Amino acid sequence: MAITLREQYLEGFVSSHEMDCMAPQVAAAAAQLRQHTGAGSDFHGWLTLPRDYDKEELARIHAAAEKIRSDTDVLVVIGIGGSYLGARSAIELLRSPYYNALGKDGPAIYFAGCNLSGSYLDEILALCEGKRVSLNVISKSGTTTEPALAFRVLRGMMEQRYGKEAAGRIYCTTDRARGTLKSLADREGWQTFVIPDDVGGRYSVLTAVGLLPMAVAGIDIDAVLAGAQKAMQELANEDFSANACYRYAAIRNILLRRGKAIEIYASYEPRFTQMGEWLKQLYGESEGKDGKGLFPASVAFTTDLHSMGQFIQDGSRNLFETVIDFITPAADLTVEEDPENLDGLNFLSGMAMRQINRRAMQGTILAHTRGGVPNLVLEVPAINEEEYGYMVYFFMLACGISGYLLGVNPFDQPGVEAYKKNMFALLGKPGYEDLRQELLAKLGE
Amino acid sequence: MAITLREQYLEGFVSSHEMDCMAPQVAAAAAQLRQHTGAGSDFHGWLTLPRDYDKEELARIHAAAEKIRSDTDVLVVIGIGGSYLGARSAIELLRSPYYNALGKDGPAIYFAGCNLSGSYLDEILALCEGKRVSLNVISKSGTTTEPALAFRVLRGMMEQRYGKEAAGRIYCTTDRARGTLKSLADREGWQTFVIPDDVGGRYSVLTAVGLLPMAVAGIDIDAVLAGAQKAMQELANEDFSANACYRYAAIRNILLRRGKAIEIYASYEPRFTQMGEWLKQLYGESEGKDGKGLFPASVAFTTDLHSMGQFIQDGSRNLFETVIDFITPAADLTVEEDPENLDGLNFLSGMAMRQINRRAMQGTILAHTRGGVPNLVLEVPAINEEEYGYMVYFFMLACGISGYLLGVNPFDQPGVEAYKKNMFALLGKPGYEDLRQELLAKLGE
Repeated sequence: MAITLREQYLEGFVSSHEMDCMAPQVAAAAAQLRQHTGAGSDFHGWLTLPRDYDKEELARIHAAAEKIRSDTDVLVVIGIGGSYLGARSAIELLRSPYYNALGKDGPAIYFAGCNLSGSYLDEILALCEGKRVSLNVISKSGTTTEPALAFRVLRGMMEQRYGKEAAGRIYCTTDRARGTLKSLADREGWQTFVIPDDVGGRYSVLTAVGLLPMAVAGIDIDAVLAGAQKAMQELANEDFSANACYRYAAIRNILLRRGKAIEIYASYEPRFTQMGEWLKQLYGESEGKDGKGLFPASVAFTTDLHSMGQFIQDGSRNLFETVIDFITPAADLTVEEDPENLDGLNFLSGMAMRQINRRAMQGTILAHTRGGVPNLVLEVPAINEEEYGYMVYFFMLACGISGYLLGVNPFDQPGVEAYKKNMFALLGKPGYEDLRQELLAKLGE
Repeated sequence: MAITLREQYLEGFVSSHEMDCMAPQVAAAAAQLRQHTGAGSDFHGWLTLPRDYDKEELARIHAAAEKIRSDTDVLVVIGIGGSYLGARSAIELLRSPYYNALGKDGPAIYFAGCNLSGSYLDEILALCEGKRVSLNVISKSGTTTEPALAFRVLRGMMEQRYGKEAAGRIYCTTDRARGTLKSLADREGWQTFVIPDDVGGRYSVLTAVGLLPMAVAGIDIDAVLAGAQKAMQELANEDFSANACYRYAAIRNILLRRGKAIEIYASYEPRFTQMGEWLKQLYGESEGKDGKGLFPASVAFTTDLHSMGQFIQDGSRNLFETVIDFITPAADLTVEEDPENLDGLNFLSGMAMRQINRRAMQGTILAHTRGGVPNLVLEVPAINEEEYGYMVYFFMLACGISGYLLGVNPFDQPGVEAYKKNMFALLGKPGYEDLRQELLAKLGE
């Protein structure tokens, strides 16, 4: 179990002396993180969490998940951003994007409170009809507009349907002691789980935020944490030449400085697609500030070779690819012989799809690098809980290091407030009257 | 019915004299398209298709869709790229991303042949178990690896299950006269629909490629075509000042020349998300060539304000946003009063979600433009068939014009062949022996 970084496809794009020059920079960035001297050090809790996790809380997560699995057909998870992307992407990767449709093991899981669409919420309500429902609302404060509004509506549905029994079906993942949601939960008798103070939203997937929905989906969360702990140990190696995570952080900064403004995360397993969204938040929100940052994008190959493939092969040369290569897929099929060979594909007969997919990957990497696109490969042995936990920790650690290399605070997100302030003003929230007048004038109202 | 382009948020980013300078360029690009003098003019068929569509074929599409709706629980649509993204995005936009799960009206529709993952295909087979299944295989040639492999597997399942009756459940959308799939269909007695010779994959959604799956999902395809025809008429206006489509094409080229390398399509309706993927193929594959092109990305707001929002607000200033603003959503909910106002959201009580979502959009546009990100707004009156048809034609026409402005052939995709050649060589396809040796050496095998 480990991620292996393949650097051979960087030949001609990143030279070894550039890497040498980065070594002391990386050491400095790692020190900022590990000695908590860097900006945002109040939010370094994720760094040791796989080891220091609250065992009692973990037991409560297991128990709650068992209860939900036994008395629930539909779990609605209410959250946005880091309270949404982690669990969803884990379930799609480790179970399936068709987890709900396959309906084999565990309740259906839907996500709400991750937008302001009335029609979306209306459909979530429809999907709950006639089903035994539980809610997991995830919000540090309880006042973030999107999840708070969805929770209003869904809590109403629950209380109408279950009366006082609703309390046993509402699970809150929130602040340990403060905030609206915590107070409400204590009063109503809802079970609560903790979002630690020193872990920001996009670094929170290995807390109850991600672990409770995962466990409900039948994912072995102990194995997830074990994988993360293994990564925590292995990636603490301060030898730059031997630390794949540090090298990845260095390479992406070198490529950015060389004018590669876009990093494309590419995988050949469709079930990784939603993980691409998780990565976009992790890196985009951590690094996209002060006018800086690699623009994160993601593709699902080979699907997107027939959409974004042309651009990557031959368009503007301002990008590079980071390929997540799963050596062993979740399942497989073998291509059978067609006696007539009408589709001309009998040269593939007897091959496993994984072999074909792998050759597609290798062929694509060679084509794209020849087209002028640097390719990094992160090799992951298999798609399972341990590897997932390892991978998550790897990407979070690389992100922290990378952000310090870039010269930003990888743990804040001041820019997210701008739209909220404007939205509150336009919606007439008390206290925003002056801004409201200014904005209405700009809108010509 | 029409798309309105709002240019007011471009103030400070694009000046009116720049637009004036573009007018003759746009006229030249439009002439290249309308007089078929531009590169790729063999593929201009989509330009008049909404008017010149084969009425007899349309009737056959209706009839096939009715049959499928009456005798099928699961339709598997087999295709990749333009044979996949159009139908899927239309169904998600016009019905719902939860169309299958809601299960109210029409067969479930799954997509296959759009990747090389054995585990994906294995799950599609599982989803067919115990259901009445039909297939719609979409491929011009019938030899594209991904759909051909999936069709081998799924056809085997169908023949095993239905014997000779399988023929009545297989529908092929393919070349009018030539190719492996057409020959096979004629021999096996499968019904066929036509991919016109002069319409490339990414411009094909208004042919049987997109229309048959849409009709199976209960979408009124006559209304879709009527909307497209309306766009065809209205957007033929050669007055640059009055043609929103031409102006959009001009603005995105101006912004590219000003160093905005990334265009982000943004919508506040989650059901538009998959349309973002369709747009990425349309623009990425049309313009990403010869080292040129805007990198297309997409976001689903407000979801992604909590992931990509920070970057857009405050990261590298190399991007702009094109907002698709649906004035009327598909459905709505009203926020109810909470007597205790524990979440502090009572200032929203009595408001429709659409009003809140709209204020979020306006607030975001004002925040992002203040952050240095040009915003274009394309206002669409509603989410329905006519508007969808109009919108599709609008984006295809803008893409053709924009590609000619950029100085590329917007109708070819030579770069897509590079990975295929390498993949064939690595998989041992006869005729690729020399390349195989070269590539294996590069891989160190």
